[in-house]
Amino acid sequence: MKKSIWRKVFSVTVLSSMIFGTTTGMTAEPVEAEGEKNPEIKNVIFLIGDGMGPAYTTAYRYLKDNPDTKKMEQTAFDPHLVGMQSTYSYDPHFDGGPDDEKENIPDSAATATAMSSGVKTYNGAIAVDLQQKDTQTVLEVAKKKGKATGLVSTSQITHATPAAFGSHENSRQSYNKIADDYYDDLINGEHKVDVLLGGGTDYFVRDDRNLAKEFQKNGYNYVTSTEGLMSNESDQLLGLFAPVGLDKAIDRPEKQPSLQQMTSEALETLSQDQDGFFLMVEGSQIDWAGHDNDVVAAMSEMEDFEKAFQEAIEFAKKDKHTLVVATADHSTGGFSIGEGGPYKWNTDVIKAAQHTPDYMAQQIVEEGAEVEATLNENIDFELKSDEIQAIKEALETSSEEDRLTEVDNAIEKIFNERSGTGWTTSGHTGVDVPVYAYGPGSDMFAGHIDNTEQAENIFKILGASPSGSEGGELADTATNYPAGIILGTLLLGAGGMILFRKKSVH
Amino acid sequence: MKKSIWRKVFSVTVLSSMIFGTTTGMTAEPVEAEGEKNPEIKNVIFLIGDGMGPAYTTAYRYLKDNPDTKKMEQTAFDPHLVGMQSTYSYDPHFDGGPDDEKENIPDSAATATAMSSGVKTYNGAIAVDLQQKDTQTVLEVAKKKGKATGLVSTSQITHATPAAFGSHENSRQSYNKIADDYYDDLINGEHKVDVLLGGGTDYFVRDDRNLAKEFQKNGYNYVTSTEGLMSNESDQLLGLFAPVGLDKAIDRPEKQPSLQQMTSEALETLSQDQDGFFLMVEGSQIDWAGHDNDVVAAMSEMEDFEKAFQEAIEFAKKDKHTLVVATADHSTGGFSIGEGGPYKWNTDVIKAAQHTPDYMAQQIVEEGAEVEATLNENIDFELKSDEIQAIKEALETSSEEDRLTEVDNAIEKIFNERSGTGWTTSGHTGVDVPVYAYGPGSDMFAGHIDNTEQAENIFKILGASPSGSEGGELADTATNYPAGIILGTLLLGAGGMILFRKKSVH
Repeated sequence: MKKSIWRKVFSVTVLSSMIFGTTTGMTAEPVEAEGEKNPEIKNVIFLIGDGMGPAYTTAYRYLKDNPDTKKMEQTAFDPHLVGMQSTYSYDPHFDGGPDDEKENIPDSAATATAMSSGVKTYNGAIAVDLQQKDTQTVLEVAKKKGKATGLVSTSQITHATPAAFGSHENSRQSYNKIADDYYDDLINGEHKVDVLLGGGTDYFVRDDRNLAKEFQKNGYNYVTSTEGLMSNESDQLLGLFAPVGLDKAIDRPEKQPSLQQMTSEALETLSQDQDGFFLMVEGSQIDWAGHDNDVVAAMSEMEDFEKAFQEAIEFAKKDKHTLVVATADHSTGGFSIGEGGPYKWNTDVIKAAQHTPDYMAQQIVEEGAEVEATLNENIDFELKSDEIQAIKEALETSSEEDRLTEVDNAIEKIFNERSGTGWTTSGHTGVDVPVYAYGPGSDMFAGHIDNTEQAENIFKILGASPSGSEGGELADTATNYPAGIILGTLLLGAGGMILFRKKSVH
Repeated sequence: MKKSIWRKVFSVTVLSSMIFGTTTGMTAEPVEAEGEKNPEIKNVIFLIGDGMGPAYTTAYRYLKDNPDTKKMEQTAFDPHLVGMQSTYSYDPHFDGGPDDEKENIPDSAATATAMSSGVKTYNGAIAVDLQQKDTQTVLEVAKKKGKATGLVSTSQITHATPAAFGSHENSRQSYNKIADDYYDDLINGEHKVDVLLGGGTDYFVRDDRNLAKEFQKNGYNYVTSTEGLMSNESDQLLGLFAPVGLDKAIDRPEKQPSLQQMTSEALETLSQDQDGFFLMVEGSQIDWAGHDNDVVAAMSEMEDFEKAFQEAIEFAKKDKHTLVVATADHSTGGFSIGEGGPYKWNTDVIKAAQHTPDYMAQQIVEEGAEVEATLNENIDFELKSDEIQAIKEALETSSEEDRLTEVDNAIEKIFNERSGTGWTTSGHTGVDVPVYAYGPGSDMFAGHIDNTEQAENIFKILGASPSGSEGGELADTATNYPAGIILGTLLLGAGGMILFRKKSVH
């Protein structure tokens, strides 16, 4: 309810900045539109660091600290912090049958649906509500309003978070169906997502269907490499750079773009639309690193996400009509800065890694590389004999099936123990996550909000009602018009009767 | 630097609210002073939830959720969230000798010094800097400005957090010296803290000195029970309700007051001063529960702290000249909502406890109470035989020295496992912590701030410069006056010389 006064607030902020020439800089910039009368919000860039709970954003600040100064420098996110959001889902209220888990810690599908549609739902739901009815997403409303739309991720682009903005499925596992949705679900006769960038060729180029070809036939440029991406000149673009997810940033070959490169190209493409755009960008694998309890991968993915965020901020600073919001969907792994007692988190250990433990384990287990040589090549500190021994044991004693995981875990353990990193789970945790916002309208996202308010705010910006109804408040009124006429007639009738009775009595 | 424009910002916010009649309600209330020209900040209430990282404030929301609604209701804190703060100390830059740990995760002494004095220091420092020189605290400046002052805690009142506001010691362990400081350190011939409420008779009533008597001789009312506290009529008050720390809220006997009761009495006493007051209130044992990895105690202490916060907010709402800030000094224990995989945090388990595991362990180990009877009396769910067996084993097999701890740990394990609570350490973690603010000036605390900015903001409110110099910017200028004259003379001389040379050249 409190957000229903947003227009008023917006005017207040704009007028204040007009009167006083500048805004405070203490909260994230309320309105970057000095001297402008109506800094219309034309574009919305919504960034999601999947799994990026408060320990991740803080840890990343520790990692990037300049050791030559006493002060710990702010990250690119910090100046734009406006609050935090709750992430819980309605899973306990979903009738999922006798085996339903009734989880009260959310998954990425439910949280993405909350942020895309303003609707709390069950874990696993891709933009469907508790009754498995399709919701309406902010991306869809943007498209209906004539804006360009984009989804960018480092996971397969059919993964839960992007999926909940551009498709509707009862289960997040339906990767093929989600890819189909991207092609088949039309808005005003057009595909609803103009720019799709991420991993996932496996779900687009299949035995039963080649969606890449279908998109190409309909005018999309289809690219599969960084080079192809950067030379794009089409205003509709499908970029798939890996069979499933991209490699972790620190392991990523040149052929696969960084999240910053994908964001940059998406912005260049989408910003050609005179009506503006909606773009969702996901740093997908912060979460995957958290599930794996891998601190090296987590910090590498944080850096990839920070650079994409900076790209968005730079665009918004120049454009002045762009709102940037960045947040996480939930936190992952119970990650903690400090473990087992000591008041120390050693970032040098993390910075010493040239690749993720996953990469090293693959070299050892799948490529047959020698253990010590592989570690020495990829880690800039001297390993202790018991650390090497533990990896060799994992390699020799574990079953073929578990070998990769066991070797990976043994390498991860070195980084966790030496850095003093703690983990409590291979799953998610319920902790609130930070919210960052920049540009016109950023005040709407301030304070403690629920994740559904992300969509509610964006619907308002797009001129639609929080329920996601296409036409907004005006359309709502129009829809209710016949009911209003009936009600009005009834009231008029009743009023007349009362008047009549009163007259007759007196 | 950005805070140096606070006066301007303040005026902007006030003027905006004057022009537009009301403020937004989207961020924590910027200025609650509708129609007032100059809502002078007369009083500051600064609340610290020791160890209360973001997982604690979120977990407490899960705990207090009304199960009859789908929505998870906000806590008393949530509507006032304005941002987060970093907590790191300068311990790595302290020359503490060859055994110095160079910790980069902070302790409560360093963080309290940062918040009381705006000075980063080493872990263990009580309002002294890296050179072990006394800092100046916001409480001291408030006293110098003629305001009443108070410290309230549920730990001994000589513990690190309150100590860093009202005393100066090189080591947080110097509890007796800290108590001495409260009496001996005078400002304008007066004791610097008018209201001292918490635990700690052991440090005040000693063989070598009876500070309670000394305070009484100097006009303080000395109380040792809830009844005594609530019937206080003196404007100077020493209340010590336990030898060291108070019992945990859920275990606390009636004789010991709640944090709300202490806060209420402190506010009633201090608000009699026409010049206003500074009050620091600490929920001390959220941290102790975290160190103990005890989720029952943690949630009980959160409730105690929330009620004190509500008391402060209620006071500020009526008073309109009171700023309330609440935050944590750091997080403790690596507490996570969710553990070991499942996406579930079962609050019923926590709500089923009538007392803390510590209390139950004491009954069993120290009072000789029967294991099963004690558990059944204090826990509202049926225990499994292996849970009871684990406690019996801890009781029977552990050494006398470890018995209490082992039995305590075995009981805590039941609550952690059944609720799905994770912990990573018996120490602190480095994660950023939430910042809540209400009332005039609350905007100053918004966004991502460092803990030193808490003190910097309060110094500004008190009209002192961030360095803590008593007289503020004016006094700084006055102090620099002789140097200014010398510099001015030199510049005039140099200018004259340049002018002369130029003349002679042309």
